[in-house]
Amino acid sequence: MSETPDSVVRTYVEQHRAAFLDDLAEWLRIPSVSAQPEHDGDVRRSAEWLSGKLKETGFPVTEIWDTPGAPAVFAEWPSDDPGAPTVLVYGHHDVQPAAREDGWATDPFEPVIRDGRMYGRGAADDKGQVFFHTLGVRAHLAVTGRTAPAVHLKLLIEGEEESGSPHFRALVEERAARLAADAVIVSDTGMWDETTPTVCTGMRGLAECEIELYGPDQDIHSGSFGGAVPNPATAAARLVAAMHDADERVAIPGFYDGVAELTDAERALFAELPFDEAAWLRTARSHATAGEAGHTTLERVWARPTAEVNGIGGGYQGPGSKTIVPSSAVLKLSFRLVAGQDPEHIERSVLRWAEDRVPAGIRHRITFSAATRPCLTPLDHPALQAVARAMGRVFDRKILFTREGGSGPAADLQDVLGAPVLFLGISVPSDGWHAPDEKVEIGLLMKGVETTAHLWGELAAALR
Amino acid sequence: MSETPDSVVRTYVEQHRAAFLDDLAEWLRIPSVSAQPEHDGDVRRSAEWLSGKLKETGFPVTEIWDTPGAPAVFAEWPSDDPGAPTVLVYGHHDVQPAAREDGWATDPFEPVIRDGRMYGRGAADDKGQVFFHTLGVRAHLAVTGRTAPAVHLKLLIEGEEESGSPHFRALVEERAARLAADAVIVSDTGMWDETTPTVCTGMRGLAECEIELYGPDQDIHSGSFGGAVPNPATAAARLVAAMHDADERVAIPGFYDGVAELTDAERALFAELPFDEAAWLRTARSHATAGEAGHTTLERVWARPTAEVNGIGGGYQGPGSKTIVPSSAVLKLSFRLVAGQDPEHIERSVLRWAEDRVPAGIRHRITFSAATRPCLTPLDHPALQAVARAMGRVFDRKILFTREGGSGPAADLQDVLGAPVLFLGISVPSDGWHAPDEKVEIGLLMKGVETTAHLWGELAAALR
Repeated sequence: MSETPDSVVRTYVEQHRAAFLDDLAEWLRIPSVSAQPEHDGDVRRSAEWLSGKLKETGFPVTEIWDTPGAPAVFAEWPSDDPGAPTVLVYGHHDVQPAAREDGWATDPFEPVIRDGRMYGRGAADDKGQVFFHTLGVRAHLAVTGRTAPAVHLKLLIEGEEESGSPHFRALVEERAARLAADAVIVSDTGMWDETTPTVCTGMRGLAECEIELYGPDQDIHSGSFGGAVPNPATAAARLVAAMHDADERVAIPGFYDGVAELTDAERALFAELPFDEAAWLRTARSHATAGEAGHTTLERVWARPTAEVNGIGGGYQGPGSKTIVPSSAVLKLSFRLVAGQDPEHIERSVLRWAEDRVPAGIRHRITFSAATRPCLTPLDHPALQAVARAMGRVFDRKILFTREGGSGPAADLQDVLGAPVLFLGISVPSDGWHAPDEKVEIGLLMKGVETTAHLWGELAAALR
Repeated sequence: MSETPDSVVRTYVEQHRAAFLDDLAEWLRIPSVSAQPEHDGDVRRSAEWLSGKLKETGFPVTEIWDTPGAPAVFAEWPSDDPGAPTVLVYGHHDVQPAAREDGWATDPFEPVIRDGRMYGRGAADDKGQVFFHTLGVRAHLAVTGRTAPAVHLKLLIEGEEESGSPHFRALVEERAARLAADAVIVSDTGMWDETTPTVCTGMRGLAECEIELYGPDQDIHSGSFGGAVPNPATAAARLVAAMHDADERVAIPGFYDGVAELTDAERALFAELPFDEAAWLRTARSHATAGEAGHTTLERVWARPTAEVNGIGGGYQGPGSKTIVPSSAVLKLSFRLVAGQDPEHIERSVLRWAEDRVPAGIRHRITFSAATRPCLTPLDHPALQAVARAMGRVFDRKILFTREGGSGPAADLQDVLGAPVLFLGISVPSDGWHAPDEKVEIGLLMKGVETTAHLWGELAAALR
């Protein structure tokens, strides 16, 4: 059998696999949890670690960009072809909170390899999927014999994605000239499953808020006062119950304003995927589907907006009982948004809705986190086709198209830089993002490396 | 001015006040929290301390009665008049959970005296109101010159009242012969306020449950799965929201079966009390009244049944946000019951109601704590009039009649022993039962001592 560029890449990647996994494990040991202030130092350490590793990879420019929050990492490697297009890779180096007692089989920040998987917080979301670009670009150079990539390559790896990217848009606006690109590759999504390679064409947006509700100035005796004063835990529960109607549509006035309804063609694309609801439920670790009437499960998670309770708390939650009217309650709500929805309009709608419903005698405070806009890539864009071709060379299968139910700041890059956003991800639904025992399939991770080794050539041709 | 029995009692009590308060403070230092297993040893220590103090007081019989849960204290002092009636005093030596960080100005288990009040968990509920019987019976002997009380006096001070008295009824049934009495004095309630002495004529009953709701087997990503699987926090909130109708009546089918509606005479008795809604709200530390349509605040807390959320919890409650569909949620609910309601019927009704409402894909478990029956004393009972007379000698005011919104195992004593139940309490609404900074007014505590010094003579005459 003759050597093809694809087999040369494969051999190169195999040869460097062990060192690559060791390095990734080292990075996963840094608990870069951006939502927890006690980990601020770890988030910075994570940025410094990555910056050093990119320099070692060969990027001639590596910088740490400070923000009012957590630092981002920027790296740049100009092409040896001055006429080459510019591509910006986006990812994040911060991770979700994780604690052993949440149900992890092993320490979330002490990665282990079991059965061809690497377990650890950030293995898939998003350190693993950022890190495959390091070996990927070296494989690209090795197989092409170049000394610099076929595209002007830039990386922007932020540190606040898991906190809603509060400073990301400002950072992109401020550094727009340095970040200018002909296309953006978002390296923070996934594909259909282990055997169905896909390219994602869009992500949902996200608006989030915390609603604090205050009743009595302290917990009071439910026998002496119960039934005669308003209970903030009851008020919290009633807000949640009022978020949806009997069809599980979101009942907040104005919520659906501007929603781009699915076309028949888009529904047909969804239907091409080998969707197995029982298997999906197992991945979701759930025991029934539920949701907005008139929509399939895939439509619900990819193309419909939602209102979700991420947390609720109030009163006594310890062992036994405590007969009180609690002094306060808290709700953590999030809203997934689809193309056509405006986060600011959603926030105004939620604010008005909550204000109208909180009863007399209960004070409330609503705090919104920074929102993320939804985004969608045109299916006929040449860069999207180039991504699909690069994946096709590695996966040997027809590449299908999906969307992503999650959210990322991709839309900000699209808005500010005026560049199309493409998604390249090798994570699979069973990877357990935001959950205990998050992992990445090492076989797919290495295919991600190979895909990026081909991608720069494909994109250079497509965007020329 | 000649010396009267009342002034002799007053002088005797004044002389022993300092030692009495020192002893009470010593007892309050024992954190006898029956709901928290780590305090099991403290509950036992509390029983032993009380038993020793009752022996020191002069009770010839003091015993610790073990139960499958926390121990009770029994004491007996036969009258020197063989034909005297028998009176059983009921109280409890266990206390509600308390922690400095709940908002206490000082350590809840390190009592302090400020401005004529003793602060500490259990100061009013119920150690203070048990403890006034020790000095009270000594004053009774001192003023009458007797060597034993005018009634056969028994005390039963249980250790599980704040946990719903799960073993109390069995204990009373098992020891019914030792506990036999012509009247029961419940020493675990309060009076109208600092200047309006009252006798309580009834207490509400209590049914309690915890509802656990389980959705996904672990927390899952709200972007990937949200909107397409049922959320247990949402299910919990919807249960709470469905507990009441738009008139704030409890909407659980069967809940009002058998409820004794207030008569016009009872409403008139309530109206004799100097009720000041603004002051009541301040005591309730609340900012509005609320509750069942068609009823006054007093009617709501004394004579109407309620459904209350004591605690709700599910998902992420820490700082920042976490975009998950939570794996589980929990509700702690309590139901105050009035005369005519049967706790077992209420439990069956709640069970059926919850089962009907929990959605597919959510598993649930309902655990009921031991229930307490409601009770009501006939207004024309001679023993009730004797209690009012004893209070009248100390307070120099017309004694009015109230009810108590809280709950106690008084009804079990009434049921098993076949004896009328009377309530003697000197606590006031501002004492902060179950709340941070619980206290007792020392002036009223000493009037409680004086009242019990008169009570045994009054009851001996009334019940003969």
